[in-house]
Amino acid sequence: MTVPRIGVSLGDPAGVGPEIVVRTLARSSVLPAAAYILFADVRIVEATERRLGLRLEAHDGHPESPAAAGVFLSHIPAAAGAEVPGRVTAQGGEASFRFFEAAVAEARAGRLEAVATAPISKAAWALAGHPFRGHTDYLARFYPGAIMSFWSDRLKVALLSHHRPLREAVEAVRKDVLVEYGRRLYGALERLPGGPFEIVVAGLNPHAGEDGRLGREEEDEIRPAVETLRGEGVRIQGPFPADTVFLKALGKPGTVVVALYHDQGLIAFKLEAFASGVNVTLGLPFVRTSPDHGTAFDIAGKGVADPGSMEEAVRLAAAFSATGS
Amino acid sequence: MTVPRIGVSLGDPAGVGPEIVVRTLARSSVLPAAAYILFADVRIVEATERRLGLRLEAHDGHPESPAAAGVFLSHIPAAAGAEVPGRVTAQGGEASFRFFEAAVAEARAGRLEAVATAPISKAAWALAGHPFRGHTDYLARFYPGAIMSFWSDRLKVALLSHHRPLREAVEAVRKDVLVEYGRRLYGALERLPGGPFEIVVAGLNPHAGEDGRLGREEEDEIRPAVETLRGEGVRIQGPFPADTVFLKALGKPGTVVVALYHDQGLIAFKLEAFASGVNVTLGLPFVRTSPDHGTAFDIAGKGVADPGSMEEAVRLAAAFSATGS
Repeated sequence: MTVPRIGVSLGDPAGVGPEIVVRTLARSSVLPAAAYILFADVRIVEATERRLGLRLEAHDGHPESPAAAGVFLSHIPAAAGAEVPGRVTAQGGEASFRFFEAAVAEARAGRLEAVATAPISKAAWALAGHPFRGHTDYLARFYPGAIMSFWSDRLKVALLSHHRPLREAVEAVRKDVLVEYGRRLYGALERLPGGPFEIVVAGLNPHAGEDGRLGREEEDEIRPAVETLRGEGVRIQGPFPADTVFLKALGKPGTVVVALYHDQGLIAFKLEAFASGVNVTLGLPFVRTSPDHGTAFDIAGKGVADPGSMEEAVRLAAAFSATGS
Repeated sequence: MTVPRIGVSLGDPAGVGPEIVVRTLARSSVLPAAAYILFADVRIVEATERRLGLRLEAHDGHPESPAAAGVFLSHIPAAAGAEVPGRVTAQGGEASFRFFEAAVAEARAGRLEAVATAPISKAAWALAGHPFRGHTDYLARFYPGAIMSFWSDRLKVALLSHHRPLREAVEAVRKDVLVEYGRRLYGALERLPGGPFEIVVAGLNPHAGEDGRLGREEEDEIRPAVETLRGEGVRIQGPFPADTVFLKALGKPGTVVVALYHDQGLIAFKLEAFASGVNVTLGLPFVRTSPDHGTAFDIAGKGVADPGSMEEAVRLAAAFSATGS
């Protein structure tokens, strides 16, 4: 029997990453059977273990056999000073970038099925000379078709666009963009376990445009795109009024709502799944997950950070990999 | 002692209005002390009472003494055929329009402190030749400064704009519009009990524009408007990222979130308060409330409609009127 190989990057050492990762991997016996390869500085991991009174029982390096489950530690040295809790530093930015970069390189080489990433600081990355907005932006360099999505037990949301001004996001609601996006998203969903999935598309205008009286995009762009995709065999419906489409999708594990702009999706998702949501990047040759929160510098190093979302991110990465997605 | 006078309009006779209104007013002993004046056809009310096995104990006509609490029935005849459950008809549209129109006329004449309206059908109004989108649109004819807002115990939201295409709503996010709106909203809030209220404003762009990197409206329009209003003594903060501003406001009864467009506010509100939310029109000389749901023609006449939101609408109308707002 082979087990999936899941990379885990430690995140910014000055944030909550080390404690939520150590807490999660210390309980690897309750996670799906997998090789969990932690990309981190061994010194920081050991200091975190001592502070929390936990032990990872990690093997050094990478698993040698495809059947080797457990926790492995791929040591990547961080500069001194990276791990002062709450401090935004170039050292912390550089270390967290290298942990992530190494995990991605292994995944790109086909040696990991998925990567779960603990939070980094965009500001610290900038100090270290890495001008990416975050993990997804870095991945989009290699995979321009990367899709940002958010998963919880009760609600799943994929964003058509994310970090762009609302005016630009509205301009991008075009039939050709939607058709291409729908194909990519559905293709990615079809490779995941837990299906079959169905896509439901939110409207752009109030009441989904109300037959064109409150905006034309639904009739001119969204509905034709949905029809084209249905003709290609994609399970997709919509557009539905945005203020009820999330309610309708709640509790339906196979339903993925396409939000047409960042806040449309995230207003709903954060209200429904604040502590347990997982950010999932789809459209890559591997799956990437992360908790739906940031470095939380204000509580870092105090041992009080809730590891729930990180644990869900790791669990989902393993679950997605179990059928070889 | 005087009691407030609250008008209640029956809504479309073919919808759930009759049953949720009768259920609510039959329990008037648990509502705030007030004169509840029901604008309806006595025949439809009595038929509903029989069907539900309830009695309103209503006095005919309007209260004669300002201290007279209880339920009163202002008879407004409806044409035959208006009340066939689930049927969208010109008769139902005309009847519901007249119930509402009569209540508003009384309120405009200063003889009601508030009006609570049961759901009407826009389509039935159109069949009857009344081209309004709904109650708020009709009121806006007399009061162009009418503000659509949504209230629940956990969350309060006011909309900067409502029934217009998203592109237009984005165009309207301008300093002058926001300053004028903020003054109107704050003035209305100051006249309500339950204060002092504080306004928090959502951002338009992802992450509230992230210091201008993801859109300029926050820096060029919203922040200057907030500063102008603060200089005038308005308790107001923002802009805050839209995907967390509602979470922050949850459970703070004195906080009102300004949503910059329809779905921004209603995605959050409907997720948080689907069955118990109340639609409140502010900026009128009287308060108007209504349940946050429609005629529900599919379940009308079956006696199964949940009266919770209607009861909250009536209760809130009375509560708002208790201090003479």
